Amino acid sequence: MNSFGRLFKLTIFGESHGESVGINIDGCPAGLPLTVDDFLPDIERRKGGTQKGATPRQETDLPIFKSGIFNDTTTGAPITILFENNNTRSTDYAKQRSHPRPGHADFVASKKFGGNEDYRGGGHFSGRLTVAMVAAGVIAKKLLQGIEVKATITEIGGDTDTERGLQKAIEAKDSVGGIVECRVTGLPIGLGEHFFDSVESLLAHAVFAIPAVRGVEFGTGFAAAKMLGKEHNDPIENMEGKTTTNHAGGVVGGYTNGNELVYRIAIKPTSSTPQDQFTLNWETQQMETFAVRGRHDLCIALRVPVVLEAVTAFVLADLMLLEQRIPRVLSTK
Amino acid sequence: MNSFGRLFKLTIFGESHGESVGINIDGCPAGLPLTVDDFLPDIERRKGGTQKGATPRQETDLPIFKSGIFNDTTTGAPITILFENNNTRSTDYAKQRSHPRPGHADFVASKKFGGNEDYRGGGHFSGRLTVAMVAAGVIAKKLLQGIEVKATITEIGGDTDTERGLQKAIEAKDSVGGIVECRVTGLPIGLGEHFFDSVESLLAHAVFAIPAVRGVEFGTGFAAAKMLGKEHNDPIENMEGKTTTNHAGGVVGGYTNGNELVYRIAIKPTSSTPQDQFTLNWETQQMETFAVRGRHDLCIALRVPVVLEAVTAFVLADLMLLEQRIPRVLSTK
Amino acid sequence: MNSFGRLFKLTIFGESHGESVGINIDGCPAGLPLTVDDFLPDIERRKGGTQKGATPRQETDLPIFKSGIFNDTTTGAPITILFENNNTRSTDYAKQRSHPRPGHADFVASKKFGGNEDYRGGGHFSGRLTVAMVAAGVIAKKLLQGIEVKATITEIGGDTDTERGLQKAIEAKDSVGGIVECRVTGLPIGLGEHFFDSVESLLAHAVFAIPAVRGVEFGTGFAAAKMLGKEHNDPIENMEGKTTTNHAGGVVGGYTNGNELVYRIAIKPTSSTPQDQFTLNWETQQMETFAVRGRHDLCIALRVPVVLEAVTAFVLADLMLLEQRIPRVLSTK
Amino acid sequence: MNSFGRLFKLTIFGESHGESVGINIDGCPAGLPLTVDDFLPDIERRKGGTQKGATPRQETDLPIFKSGIFNDTTTGAPITILFENNNTRSTDYAKQRSHPRPGHADFVASKKFGGNEDYRGGGHFSGRLTVAMVAAGVIAKKLLQGIEVKATITEIGGDTDTERGLQKAIEAKDSVGGIVECRVTGLPIGLGEHFFDSVESLLAHAVFAIPAVRGVEFGTGFAAAKMLGKEHNDPIENMEGKTTTNHAGGVVGGYTNGNELVYRIAIKPTSSTPQDQFTLNWETQQMETFAVRGRHDLCIALRVPVVLEAVTAFVLADLMLLEQRIPRVLSTK
Repeated sequence: MNSFGRLFKLTIFGESHGESVGINIDGCPAGLPLTVDDFLPDIERRKGGTQKGATPRQETDLPIFKSGIFNDTTTGAPITILFENNNTRSTDYAKQRSHPRPGHADFVASKKFGGNEDYRGGGHFSGRLTVAMVAAGVIAKKLLQGIEVKATITEIGGDTDTERGLQKAIEAKDSVGGIVECRVTGLPIGLGEHFFDSVESLLAHAVFAIPAVRGVEFGTGFAAAKMLGKEHNDPIENMEGKTTTNHAGGVVGGYTNGNELVYRIAIKPTSSTPQDQFTLNWETQQMETFAVRGRHDLCIALRVPVVLEAVTAFVLADLMLLEQRIPRVLSTK
Repeated sequence: MNSFGRLFKLTIFGESHGESVGINIDGCPAGLPLTVDDFLPDIERRKGGTQKGATPRQETDLPIFKSGIFNDTTTGAPITILFENNNTRSTDYAKQRSHPRPGHADFVASKKFGGNEDYRGGGHFSGRLTVAMVAAGVIAKKLLQGIEVKATITEIGGDTDTERGLQKAIEAKDSVGGIVECRVTGLPIGLGEHFFDSVESLLAHAVFAIPAVRGVEFGTGFAAAKMLGKEHNDPIENMEGKTTTNHAGGVVGGYTNGNELVYRIAIKPTSSTPQDQFTLNWETQQMETFAVRGRHDLCIALRVPVVLEAVTAFVLADLMLLEQRIPRVLSTK
Repeated sequence: MNSFGRLFKLTIFGESHGESVGINIDGCPAGLPLTVDDFLPDIERRKGGTQKGATPRQETDLPIFKSGIFNDTTTGAPITILFENNNTRSTDYAKQRSHPRPGHADFVASKKFGGNEDYRGGGHFSGRLTVAMVAAGVIAKKLLQGIEVKATITEIGGDTDTERGLQKAIEAKDSVGGIVECRVTGLPIGLGEHFFDSVESLLAHAVFAIPAVRGVEFGTGFAAAKMLGKEHNDPIENMEGKTTTNHAGGVVGGYTNGNELVYRIAIKPTSSTPQDQFTLNWETQQMETFAVRGRHDLCIALRVPVVLEAVTAFVLADLMLLEQRIPRVLSTK
Repeated sequence: MNSFGRLFKLTIFGESHGESVGINIDGCPAGLPLTVDDFLPDIERRKGGTQKGATPRQETDLPIFKSGIFNDTTTGAPITILFENNNTRSTDYAKQRSHPRPGHADFVASKKFGGNEDYRGGGHFSGRLTVAMVAAGVIAKKLLQGIEVKATITEIGGDTDTERGLQKAIEAKDSVGGIVECRVTGLPIGLGEHFFDSVESLLAHAVFAIPAVRGVEFGTGFAAAKMLGKEHNDPIENMEGKTTTNHAGGVVGGYTNGNELVYRIAIKPTSSTPQDQFTLNWETQQMETFAVRGRHDLCIALRVPVVLEAVTAFVLADLMLLEQRIPRVLSTK
């Protein structure tokens, strides 16, 4: 449903144009210093409105601590963080109600929930909830001492010169997709399990909770399907497990192998393109031309790196706890 | 760990060269007819030895029912199925113990489990356990009435003429990767949840439990990252949610949308190539040339389609139960 | 940790003297009408201050919906409900910090969480959080159509004349324990599973989340240990499974059997007695006489019936969903 | 369903008169020495046939390791242990099919599973499966170094002279109930969580998976409901948390407090009394007199102590792993 993780366990909730979005984190170790300031840089990175191609909607997005934090420190009790929705213009969406937007959850959510869903701005099914994931990521990163998680956008619209790729979309007045890559250094050997809790399984599971992700690949990824064994295999060099090459992307047999973790995700072009589109009109039951109103991103991939880092960090924090590499109490008072 | 699923819940166990591998399935509805014969076709498809490029090791692989089946029918109690290991040659592997094979779990498993792991033939970390997944898939497919799950190999070594791709590997005396695609028809609208239990999240999670998978993509997948919104969006045509195109691969906002589910996985070349390789010698702590002995596949991707079908089927069976589209009792006596 | 349930899944959070306490419910069916008014009667029943023997602390305790409800109806997305803490006097507790109260979590929580816990008024470890359970119970009861859940206090201080039992405590100026019994009618046959998810297992699990519970018994309960088989067995009378007697309390082999569900819990006397007590002084490391300040109940059992109903209702709602006896969508729009 | 535990996770399976019963344990640390001999003493204690009042049915009950153990040591992979059913006389039960036995799952299981259940000897719903719990307990006890778990029968038929209580049942030619108490020494402070994963919640949950349990109480238990606060509270004496009295039974606020853990369960008289009883005849749909055939215990409570120890041990092992007090690798090779 809306939870993830075994020992560092998240539950996200809220609606794009409801009162708030938020997150509950159960299992965060006690004794981690935590203030609002810790969240601001990553929340700022996630915000639209400052980059070309990103939506002008801007929430203040100050995290409001409702539980689990006392004297600027985690207590070990479940942490609840809210983000209020101040800057919503739901009337934009009321107008669209009769036209389920292509590529959005509008149509299927209505079928699934019998029309009871909050349809305003995608409701619960909105990229707005990634702010809650980012908040979890901030905490997870603080738990991952000595481990660096870094995601960057490596391609827009098929172009590794991302400026150029974005410019093409702006000119076409259309949304555009991209590739985001995440690299993690400093990981110990042996995180993950072999089958259903492999590192790839858990990261892929979490990554597909980010709206607009259409694929994920580790190390050489899809290119590995074209390779021969001798070129793909990574010779093990030394007793620390360092490999000469890193086609595996740092994961072997489901476990981290101590080399850099490298993986990539494919982001589709935002469904909410400014272009006219065809879709069904629920009232007339006919297809018709339709233009999506509201504030949207041309390239949602631009806002994804900080979300991908967050997702990666909370998966790894959970695995580090499972391996007893993060203690249950980080500092005492 | 080694379990997957919420209402149709699997636990796999066993070692490649131990006594047996097997599976426990908790939550299978009562009243499903089930005999050994139901398993034979898919188990046969998974077996090596009959295809060019597949390992000559052949287990009889008859499923042995240990619980949960009575009078050729599921009882509603947990089902346990064993596959005995009859045809093992562990001495092949004892010799290799000092050389952790590149691309295998040998090195990391030894680090993680303190040398206690069963290292013979990969032990628990072996493709042998996919027979247990196939068994679960057989049961899941029987639960998915009116839904067809079909996987095929679409590319070997980068060549969509798979015969030709395989031939190149045979000539190179090397292992080779491939692409396997799965298509599912007959799905209802609305399986899955929006975030952490999206259809993509659950399928990707399960798929990365298949050894040698390096990537997964839905619908247009990585190609979507190169597209503009207008070309990627799938116009909704009618009140059943049929879309004119299917770039989404049948999943929108984390839910099935009633169109064909289409996704692909990338399989790396088998690590156990017949070619000489470099790796560490644990005793000398030096890298040296090394040749993997034992019976292995040149193209493991050849054996993957039936496993991918199985994985797909048990994920979907679980989601169908969550949506109350499969009853808890299928027939009464 | 702080979650419970499989399909109707709760997470409770908050601290007694922090900003708020609250609950997240994931998996509530869509289409259930729900307004603040639905909560008021049960919240009123739980409140202290109106009964003899109950604490004078009174929160307004209006539920604040933060997610999952739209147009006075559940949407199918996770529901978050907050209760703000307005009426706290934390200074009462700061004074007590040096004396871990006997029978409270003060000492062990400090050991477990390294002194980082919110110690004010018991912090997270406070009966205050039962208001969140009551809120979940209100929703669960609405889901349980045709099923009546009713708990009553049957004994105070060993006296089945509860007025008299309470009067003795008031005269002794001491807190006192009691027995609360819950009866449920209208249940179908076959809720629950045989072993770890037996009806008794799940109810007992949830019941011990209510502070001050020291025991639970079903049907004849502890008295059954004194009986012979012939007197304890309940003859089955008819094809609906009605039994002549109900020593089993409506549960056989872990399943509901269609007869009235009957079970009882034992509530200890509140630890926060007005009487002087002995305990450790953490600073002097000596035992000394100590009087608990703050507002407290003489007989916490008086406030338990509505909490026990809530707990019972959310366990049963979860089981009803597992048996597909509550649909995922209750009404369409 | 049939699983329990978060890090030390059990799944039990099998039927009383099917091929076998067994258990899968996922999450057992690697490097624990384990041989068949380790199991024999506790399996012997559980067996019927050697005590007055216990059933003459005797299985050899040798544990058969199917996975997870290599070179007499746990590998860290899931452990599967089978117990074959050699000594079954199912014809006893076929005759009884038309008469659902009072106090057994016969009637409700048939309703729940549509008549597909294995009804022979209670099938999956049989005390036979406690042998699998005992096996898990043997492993858990080995993990709990320095912790002693000891259960004893303290009362039969209401008599603390258990010999005398049993003798009365033998003379009455009827089955009889009893009380079993478990005490655990050597526990650290702080196992458990405050609400849904309180030590009492988890133990009670697991305990009600033992057939015939009707109640559970901690410390003073139901007697606490009759007490005043001052007499019930346990003064804290020293910095290790030792209390002068132990009415709490070693659990405060859901956590172990470092004192002896003490709790008791009530066992009902076995439903399968040799006495004639009334029950429904499914064919005639009338009540009639009925005598249960087969081999049964007069006092099942006699066989419960080792099962209660097992249940207690695996709950505590799970909590010790959660608190990182048992390492993931116990010894290296």
